[in-house]
Amino acid sequence: MGRRVTVWNEFRHERENDAVAEVYPDGIHAVIADALEDAGHNVETATLDDGPQHGLSEEVLEATDVLTWWGHAAHDEVNEEVVERVQEHVLDGMGLLVLHSAHMSKIFRKLMGTGCGLKWREAAETERLWVTDPSHPITDGLPESFEVPEAEMYGEHFDIPAPETLVFNSWFEGGEVFRSGCCYSRGEGRVFYFRPGHETYPVYHQEEIQQVLANAVEWAAPNEDGPEIYRGNHEPIEDIDIDDDRTVH
Amino acid sequence: MGRRVTVWNEFRHERENDAVAEVYPDGIHAVIADALEDAGHNVETATLDDGPQHGLSEEVLEATDVLTWWGHAAHDEVNEEVVERVQEHVLDGMGLLVLHSAHMSKIFRKLMGTGCGLKWREAAETERLWVTDPSHPITDGLPESFEVPEAEMYGEHFDIPAPETLVFNSWFEGGEVFRSGCCYSRGEGRVFYFRPGHETYPVYHQEEIQQVLANAVEWAAPNEDGPEIYRGNHEPIEDIDIDDDRTVH
Amino acid sequence: MGRRVTVWNEFRHERENDAVAEVYPDGIHAVIADALEDAGHNVETATLDDGPQHGLSEEVLEATDVLTWWGHAAHDEVNEEVVERVQEHVLDGMGLLVLHSAHMSKIFRKLMGTGCGLKWREAAETERLWVTDPSHPITDGLPESFEVPEAEMYGEHFDIPAPETLVFNSWFEGGEVFRSGCCYSRGEGRVFYFRPGHETYPVYHQEEIQQVLANAVEWAAPNEDGPEIYRGNHEPIEDIDIDDDRTVH
Amino acid sequence: MGRRVTVWNEFRHERENDAVAEVYPDGIHAVIADALEDAGHNVETATLDDGPQHGLSEEVLEATDVLTWWGHAAHDEVNEEVVERVQEHVLDGMGLLVLHSAHMSKIFRKLMGTGCGLKWREAAETERLWVTDPSHPITDGLPESFEVPEAEMYGEHFDIPAPETLVFNSWFEGGEVFRSGCCYSRGEGRVFYFRPGHETYPVYHQEEIQQVLANAVEWAAPNEDGPEIYRGNHEPIEDIDIDDDRTVH
Repeated sequence: MGRRVTVWNEFRHERENDAVAEVYPDGIHAVIADALEDAGHNVETATLDDGPQHGLSEEVLEATDVLTWWGHAAHDEVNEEVVERVQEHVLDGMGLLVLHSAHMSKIFRKLMGTGCGLKWREAAETERLWVTDPSHPITDGLPESFEVPEAEMYGEHFDIPAPETLVFNSWFEGGEVFRSGCCYSRGEGRVFYFRPGHETYPVYHQEEIQQVLANAVEWAAPNEDGPEIYRGNHEPIEDIDIDDDRTVH
Repeated sequence: MGRRVTVWNEFRHERENDAVAEVYPDGIHAVIADALEDAGHNVETATLDDGPQHGLSEEVLEATDVLTWWGHAAHDEVNEEVVERVQEHVLDGMGLLVLHSAHMSKIFRKLMGTGCGLKWREAAETERLWVTDPSHPITDGLPESFEVPEAEMYGEHFDIPAPETLVFNSWFEGGEVFRSGCCYSRGEGRVFYFRPGHETYPVYHQEEIQQVLANAVEWAAPNEDGPEIYRGNHEPIEDIDIDDDRTVH
Repeated sequence: MGRRVTVWNEFRHERENDAVAEVYPDGIHAVIADALEDAGHNVETATLDDGPQHGLSEEVLEATDVLTWWGHAAHDEVNEEVVERVQEHVLDGMGLLVLHSAHMSKIFRKLMGTGCGLKWREAAETERLWVTDPSHPITDGLPESFEVPEAEMYGEHFDIPAPETLVFNSWFEGGEVFRSGCCYSRGEGRVFYFRPGHETYPVYHQEEIQQVLANAVEWAAPNEDGPEIYRGNHEPIEDIDIDDDRTVH
Repeated sequence: MGRRVTVWNEFRHERENDAVAEVYPDGIHAVIADALEDAGHNVETATLDDGPQHGLSEEVLEATDVLTWWGHAAHDEVNEEVVERVQEHVLDGMGLLVLHSAHMSKIFRKLMGTGCGLKWREAAETERLWVTDPSHPITDGLPESFEVPEAEMYGEHFDIPAPETLVFNSWFEGGEVFRSGCCYSRGEGRVFYFRPGHETYPVYHQEEIQQVLANAVEWAAPNEDGPEIYRGNHEPIEDIDIDDDRTVH
């Protein structure tokens, strides 16, 4: 089913670095957006420099089922107000896909409550992702393992809360492992962290990666008519016995 | 999307006990099957006395996306061979919905690895189910809590492995609580235990209950084209250094 | 084994409200501290008005294995700097026990990444806690259920990440349920949220409650010599093949 | 604290194969027992050929806090009655450490409910275990990663229920990864699966491996005075309203 997706990108590397522009001439967001549209989703894009709200106004988020987030060098430039707005929308049901170096984004760290640090290395080495939960819909259409031929390494310990579901587990040529596909629920919303995706390697052009993203959008999409949650002072549903000597204020 | 569902029922109480027959004249399976068909699924039924395989031949299970299981008084009469076949199909991707007193069924205990015992009481008391994960698709279309007006009580400690996701948490008039909606993955398959559903109370006629079952079928349905898993002796993918003095047998 | 515990308390209600002072004349922290000392732990206390750092200087936290946190009316007055310091210490291994109304404390919300809201009601009603994981050390010395005779109700949906382990599940007289004992890991540290504990009811004087707190201190205490984690740029441990035409920057 | 440990071993390879006897002349159990005694535990051993009960009588299990299990070639020879007895003791609180090739033991498969299959290869390759939960007591005294220089490879997908806590994640020279240290609760008992440990490699002589086993014994040990669980028909604790027209049988 087609979901309303907003693909957000920092979009700085692509405009400032020739090596990146060669791989993603129209920006990482353009490639991701194309892939998700091909999968049947309805996609808009937004970037850091789309005004003070980074293209993520209340109106945009209200019309978004799932937001994907790629950032790397300018996490600090994201307005706190926008971060809080995204968090609120996630807690209200919007799905969030956090991609690669966005592990250090303000929004991911805010939703995780941890430092989200890790080991890293840029050596164009082989990464091999292994499926650890083949019952999970994010693995639909995938083989039990697949390679990213040229990857930036991310290694454990990854400072995140234990994922509610671990979908992928990565092997790296240089000797490390990494929890690469991590599912979380936060309020009425769902969050998926997906590791692959460097700016100088053509990772988002890769078929398996695009399949994961399309599946994850479906998984993270909000309920159509989910439970309406009340929080605050609550009248008793059942009689409370107050005929005794108990203290009532 | 319509799933191929097989609704399995012990179907003894309804034929032997007038009080039960009054609530479920054509059997519990008939009511569940109607509800799931109304929700757009393609439903067949099978019962304990449908021959030595209880209606669950290899052919039937091969044509089943999700199996629902209701049993109570005759768990022991289910052939071990059928239990093992169902387990294999779950591990290969078939979804399984385990209903109410089927907590003591052979198949549930086999898939859980625990005793699956609990406290119980038949007093037609009020049960109130509270949603504990409003991000979960099984809660779509539901309020944040709903009542079963006349319920058999099931109370903690419920001897199951900690659910991977706890979707519902029940309150009982007599003073107990219970983890009422429990999600598990087993191999390539998914299992959902759902507590409500006694034979003498019209629980399966209730709208919210039917909504949960329809949602759970969708959640438990197998991947269309999930990862093909190989297990056994595996050739190395990467070169293994054997030029040193390491022991090789 | 005796742990170094710092019991932190907002300590405002007790000084401003006679009903509270009657139950906790020396403050809630005094009762908790006594209970933990009786259990063999080495306890210090600190309160909101202990200077601008609220008694939680770097030196104090460095000498703390487990910090317990009670707050209610003055969450906003806790300095952000202190909150960040506590978070850092948790990520570095310090245990944290979050008590009752501290569900809305800055530190708990920061570590959870969610709103942490809930339903509540002050009606001196009965709460009954049921053990949902009898294998857990926090349940040692406890019965399978116990009552708090006069409790403030907290009801679902509790806006927290799904606990890694759910230890207690509460029943309330007025009709609600609540996940009352929730375990989390955050970095090298452990967090336990424990629901009971209102300022106008003598909850912390109750034997079972004191037993839970003493057990939880033991559970949350840091490893004596846990893994030293490195994060940042990491040299390969294994040879990386760079003899091919792969891109290296 | 010293725990009463029973180290169980199939003890066939060591008597039949010279290469194994060279590494473990008195059996794998002897090396494990020595290590656990050095760590302060009180250790007995038992083996498959210790009579029809394999040395695991009711009396032995009653006097056991934690049982460790190593088997490989003769899983089928373990009596079903003994398997059920071990399961019962686990559900009643006894800890169980399942080692390496015991992933296919009857007791592990029974407690997991899955097939427990995996990929494997004997090539004396390097395994590197990475800590994924540094807050966990099983990691105390360990570095953030350590190597097994000559290991049999076990690769994903490992057909187990998702571990409640994943403590170690293994990298293999040949290109696979594996969830190597997996924690479960089952009833009142705890189960830890630990991957390393082949019969022809001196894995159990390795310091880090011995540290993990000693820590895991401590983690898996039962509560001293855990909750006594009642299961069965339960009288209401609170009044149930029967003055209305509800159905009571």
